[in-house]
Formats: sequence, C-alpha cells, structure tokens
Amino acid sequence: MKAVVLCSGLATRMGGTIKPLIKVAGREIIYRTLKILQDNGVDEFIIIANKINKNALTKFLEENGFKFKIVVNEQPERGSGYSFYLSKDFVNGRFVLIMGDHIFEEDFIRNALKLDGLICDCDSKFVNVEEATKVLVKNGRVTDIGKHLNNFTCIDTGFFILTKDIFTIAEKLIKEKKVVELSEIIKEAKVNVNTLNGYFWMDIDTPEDVKRAKKIIVRKSVKKGEDGFISRHLNRKISPLISEKLIDRIDPIHATIMSFLVGILSSLVVFYSIPLSGIIYQISSILDGVDGEIARAAMKTSKTGGWLDSTLDRYVDFLFLTCLAVNSLVNYEWILALFAIFGSFMISYTTERYRAEFKESFYKRHRPVVFGKRDERIFLIMLFCLLSPWVDIFYLFVVIAIVTNLRVVESILRVILLKR
Amino acid sequence: MKAVVLCSGLATRMGGTIKPLIKVAGREIIYRTLKILQDNGVDEFIIIANKINKNALTKFLEENGFKFKIVVNEQPERGSGYSFYLSKDFVNGRFVLIMGDHIFEEDFIRNALKLDGLICDCDSKFVNVEEATKVLVKNGRVTDIGKHLNNFTCIDTGFFILTKDIFTIAEKLIKEKKVVELSEIIKEAKVNVNTLNGYFWMDIDTPEDVKRAKKIIVRKSVKKGEDGFISRHLNRKISPLISEKLIDRIDPIHATIMSFLVGILSSLVVFYSIPLSGIIYQISSILDGVDGEIARAAMKTSKTGGWLDSTLDRYVDFLFLTCLAVNSLVNYEWILALFAIFGSFMISYTTERYRAEFKESFYKRHRPVVFGKRDERIFLIMLFCLLSPWVDIFYLFVVIAIVTNLRVVESILRVILLKR
Repeated sequence: MKAVVLCSGLATRMGGTIKPLIKVAGREIIYRTLKILQDNGVDEFIIIANKINKNALTKFLEENGFKFKIVVNEQPERGSGYSFYLSKDFVNGRFVLIMGDHIFEEDFIRNALKLDGLICDCDSKFVNVEEATKVLVKNGRVTDIGKHLNNFTCIDTGFFILTKDIFTIAEKLIKEKKVVELSEIIKEAKVNVNTLNGYFWMDIDTPEDVKRAKKIIVRKSVKKGEDGFISRHLNRKISPLISEKLIDRIDPIHATIMSFLVGILSSLVVFYSIPLSGIIYQISSILDGVDGEIARAAMKTSKTGGWLDSTLDRYVDFLFLTCLAVNSLVNYEWILALFAIFGSFMISYTTERYRAEFKESFYKRHRPVVFGKRDERIFLIMLFCLLSPWVDIFYLFVVIAIVTNLRVVESILRVILLKR
Repeated sequence: MKAVVLCSGLATRMGGTIKPLIKVAGREIIYRTLKILQDNGVDEFIIIANKINKNALTKFLEENGFKFKIVVNEQPERGSGYSFYLSKDFVNGRFVLIMGDHIFEEDFIRNALKLDGLICDCDSKFVNVEEATKVLVKNGRVTDIGKHLNNFTCIDTGFFILTKDIFTIAEKLIKEKKVVELSEIIKEAKVNVNTLNGYFWMDIDTPEDVKRAKKIIVRKSVKKGEDGFISRHLNRKISPLISEKLIDRIDPIHATIMSFLVGILSSLVVFYSIPLSGIIYQISSILDGVDGEIARAAMKTSKTGGWLDSTLDRYVDFLFLTCLAVNSLVNYEWILALFAIFGSFMISYTTERYRAEFKESFYKRHRPVVFGKRDERIFLIMLFCLLSPWVDIFYLFVVIAIVTNLRVVESILRVILLKR
C-alpha cells in the first residue's frame, strides 16, 4: 500500500519553517507519521512538496531510509486539491492520503488502516474545534465539509483511505476552476466516512500547537503496567515534567547516564549525610523514569538502552546498600546486608527470568501482595535515611532483608501454584 | 494432514506387553511420535489396533488429548499390509504412515514431513542393519524390499508419506491372498523413495532396544550451546549417566529439588568441613544438569520448571557464599563477600535481562573472554575449598569479587559496542 503525503503548504503561521520537519517531542512531524505507517505495512510514500521545501524533504527522507517519490507542486497557490491531484499517476488501488503537518498516535493509524474513506473523530479531545475542519455526514457519506459549518457530525482528522476513482472527480474540478481545495473534492465525491473516536491526533499550525502536542505525547509515553505504588503516585507525577523539559535537548541514553550518576552520587553522600543521601537516591529513582519516557515519546526506544538501564539500576542499588552497610553496620550485622542485597536482586532477577522464559511480563499475570519493587524499596530506604538521626539504620536492613525475601518467596509460590 | 499408525502387531519379543505403550526414556513410544507429529501439523491419528491392545491404547490416547480414531484389526494374522488397508476409508489426500513401535527424533520427522513416498536412511547409525528392512532403489523407486536382501540401497525407516492411490494396489493384493505384508504393497506400488540420513530413529523390538534407545535419547538431550567450560568438560560427562539411571523413576521437578537440597547441604557443611563442602557444592552443580536432561529426553520440558531451576540456583549460590563468609571472614573483609555475591548475581541477571529484551540467548552473539558462568564459578570455589587448609578463604572472595565483576563489565561493553 502507498501513502500520499501533502507537504506543499506554506507554513505561514510557523514563521516560514518547513512544517513537516519541525520536531515535536524530539521527532520531526513527518517522521512520526511515516514511521508508524511503514511499521504497519505502507511501503512507499508519494510526497507532494513545493519548490522551497523539496530539497530539505528529500534529504531528510533519504537519511531516514524511507522509500519515497517527491512530486513538486509548481503552483501551490492552486490549492490543496490541486496538490493532491498531482499524485494521480503514482498510486494504484487503495491508498492512504494524509497531511504532512498532522500527528497521529500509533493506535489511531493502526485502526484507521483497517477502515476506508475519510476518517473522522466524533469525540476529539485534543483538537481546537474552532479551528478544525468539520464534516456533515448523511447516510455514511460526506454531505458538507469546511471550517465554518454550524451543523456538523464530526471532525475531519486529515486521514483518508481512498481508491483511484477519486481522481476522476478531482480532474473534473481542476478543469473547471483555478483553485481547488481538497475539501471540495471530498465533498463532490461524497466520500464515505468512518469514525475513530478519542485517539490523539492534531494538526500543527502554530508554535503553541507544538508545545501542546509535546506535552500530550510525553504524558502518553508514561509506561503504566509495571509501575509500583510509589512510581504511580509520586515518581510518575514528576518525571514527565522533567522529560518535557529535556526531550528536545537530549537522547534517552543521556537520561540513563544522568540517573545512574545521580544514583552513584547518592551512594557517596552516605558518608557525608545519610538523610541527604536518601533524598538524592529518591531523586535518582524519579530520574530513572525519564529515559524511558523520552525514548517512547521521541520514538527512539532501543533494546540496548532498555538493557543498559536495568543493568545500571542494579549497580546503583548495590552500591547504595553497600555504602550504607559500610557506614552503619558493625560486626555480624553485615549478614543482614547480604540478605537485603540478595533479596533486592532476586526481585529483579525472578521477574526478568520469567520474562525471558514466558515471553511476557511477570506482572501481567501476578500481583504480589508484599511490596518490594524498586521504586517502593527506594522510597522506604529514603524514609529510613531521613529518620536516621533517631532510628538505627540497622533496622532498615532488617526490614529490607525480610520484605524483599518474603516477596521473592511469594513470587515463587505464585508461579508454582499457577504453573506459570 | 492425518497419520495412520500401525499398532496391530503382537509384541512377541517383548513378553506380550503393548509395545506402543512401553516407556522409553520416560515416555511411551507412541506418545513420542504422535506428539512430534502433532506439533508439526498432523491433526488426526488413525490407530490400527488389535483386540488385545485397543482398550489400553484408547485410554492412553484420550488421557493425553490426542485426536484419534481407533480401527480394530480382527485378523492381525493377515499381516501388516492388511492392517494398513483397514485405514482406507479414514484418510484422504496426502497422509503419513508410521509404525507404532518406531521412535524418531524431532528433526527427522520435521524434515520427513516435507518429503514424500518411503523415507529411507543411507547412513543409519543407530540401527542394527542385520535386523532392518532393506530397500533396493532404482530410478528413485522401490524395486525390492525385505529383511534378507543382499543387494540394497538403503534402510526402510518405517516412515511414509503416501496418497490414497496406494489403496488400489493394496486392495488388489488383499483380494488375491490371505496374508499381505506392508512391504509387498510398497514393492508392488513401486513407491518413490526419499532419503534422510544420519538422524536418530529406531524400531523397538527387544528389551535391549529399549535400553539402547534410552541411552541415545538421554545423550541427545544434553544442551550444548550455553554450557561453560567446566560443564562441557566435566559436568556433562557425568550428568547423562545419572539422568539415564533416574529417567524412568523421577520427574524433572524431583531432579531440580534434589540438586537444590544438595546445594543447601553443601552450604551447611561449610561449618563442619570446608573442603567437603566444596566437593558437595560441585556435586550439586553436576546434578543441576540432570533436571534439564530428563525434561528434554522425556519430553517433559516446562517453562515453570526452567524458571524454578534458575531461581533455586540463585538461592544455593547465595547461601553457599554467605555461609563461607560467615565462617571465614572477619571485620571489614565482608565487603568482599558483598562484591562477590553481587558479581555472581549480575552475571546471571545481565544474561537473563538480555534474553528478555532481545528474545535470544546472550551467548548466541557474545563470547566473553573472562570466565564466570555458574559451572566455572562453582569449580573455582571447590578448588579454593579444597586448598583451604593452606590458602585463606579470604583470597577466594578476592578472586570471585574481581572476576565476576570484570565479566559483567566486559558484557556491558560488548552489548554497548555491538549495540545489542
């Protein structure tokens, strides 16, 4: 399947920059849509460009390995319908038509590809209805379309699945008039309408739109399923704010290293001030969410990055408990440190070994009642560190050693009893 | 695709027991073949039984959830060709024909299903040629077949892929004579021949065959790819001998628990005699291979079993080093124990986390030069334990702490540099 991408508009409200190449949450608008389409079976892109942006677009698409054809619209003033018409000889059968300045979340595109006609949204949560193109639908087909309809059924998402027939009508209109907008062709062809409601999609018209889209994309990139209690109720309230600030400036690997270094710092601060070290350790736990959020939001996830992040987390956890033990435990108390470190590690080990064996997350099937996930452990450790002027750190090791090992035993029993 | 299974023979040389239900290496002969065929797309089995074994076979196949039809041969004395002829109305198109007393390894069956005609073996390593059915092939077709051919091309494996045409010739022969053997039909039909050489397959005729097949199956179940140096050159020389003794008596989970208990015992013996504890720990390492061998040989592998085995290994490793530390380390030396335990765990953790993320074994792509796999660590620990009257155990912790952590750092660098 091919996709036609209209990029011939002049970005007047964006200060004349090339709109499809504007970075939103760390990735160019056009990259976002094309990458998702490509991952879902679209194998060639017909890019309708103008004389100004054609070179920059060509260079960008080549660098990112997309299979594409550039068609230059020499008369962009003839309207979006005319631009679209230029793709006529490059498509066949069923094809996708999208706007080069629209952003869609992956679930939207995946579902839209199963439908046909104009994809509309009856519950558009993320779009300014005032500015949007509205559609009046009768008997499942477009009856009227435009920005200023008073009576309308739903919002035009700018995502179409069309067939070559549409060009007969396009040609007729283009022969009749000088300026033809895409909406006129759609209305004249009485394109059928399918709805996909409530997904995130937006057209990017102003710098404010860029900011708003970034915020939404970062929030949607917060991974939910596997978070512990502290992560859900504290860490993930703060980390997206940091991710939003950093996403245009750094790559995920930088965030991984930053969180690692803050973790190492917290371990060293143990010898200077235990309460302060506890706070820094908790900060590193919050920062630990940032790399994943940036990676998902900027479509830069990598398996190596995920593996490295987990591995470095284990170093931080080990070093912190070891420094705390060196600083605070005497004589045979250190056996507790062994048990605490062992238990902490076994929580991570058993869940990863499970994922390797069963090819799914441990937490998809199991919800242990004993707490002990990393975010929960770190928060508990911070509490004890803050209380250290009054409560001996020895008791922290007692609690961690007992709780983590109990949790591992619970996990073992669950897996054996459920037989997976 | 359907499969016809001839089970109407009377097991005269096996003391009249029901041959397809004889356990070889912990699994019934017929289960082995049917399970592999089922896993490779055969969806129904036509079982030709006799009056004596029909009830036992029905019960067994029902209990194991196979989809099957039983056809009872009331006149088994009319020969194997007559038995086969009874399946006529139950198959269509292309179908498999196998003998109920044959064992085939999975790779043989997987490849045979892609071929057709009589599958022969020109390089039969596992079969007594004296006793085997020989085939003379000309122009790719059976010219002569029988046990007593002097001039022959290859050995009949007892595995056929046939089409319904064969029954025309079978019917003709059965109308002509009272006793018709399968080989007569095959010869008369000039069935085409395909060869698969060197795979393990056997027909089970005598109690000695059962023993021999068991030995071969257990040896073939030794997992090679991920073993460390000590495992390859010591542990895996001994563990198959133990597996062979135990496979008819115990399930894999019992072997897991046995190896775990021996590991726990070795930890406790630390307080009594360190050299002895080292030896017992090494024995537990050898036993650690038995559960997997039994599971694969007896076709009883389970993900839960694999997960539990790894988890219990971590307990044994932790407990042994902890007991050794408690017994031998003083004052601040115990920091070494923390590093040794951490490093040992991180070797396991990083490889499992890798497998969870990349969906393949760490060792498929990486061959770290620093040693440190579990079998290697345990062997080193045993050596130090044996030398403990002369060398302080303190140095064992120094070596383990350094080597394991070096190995983890090497793994991290490898993954980062290779980007996976």
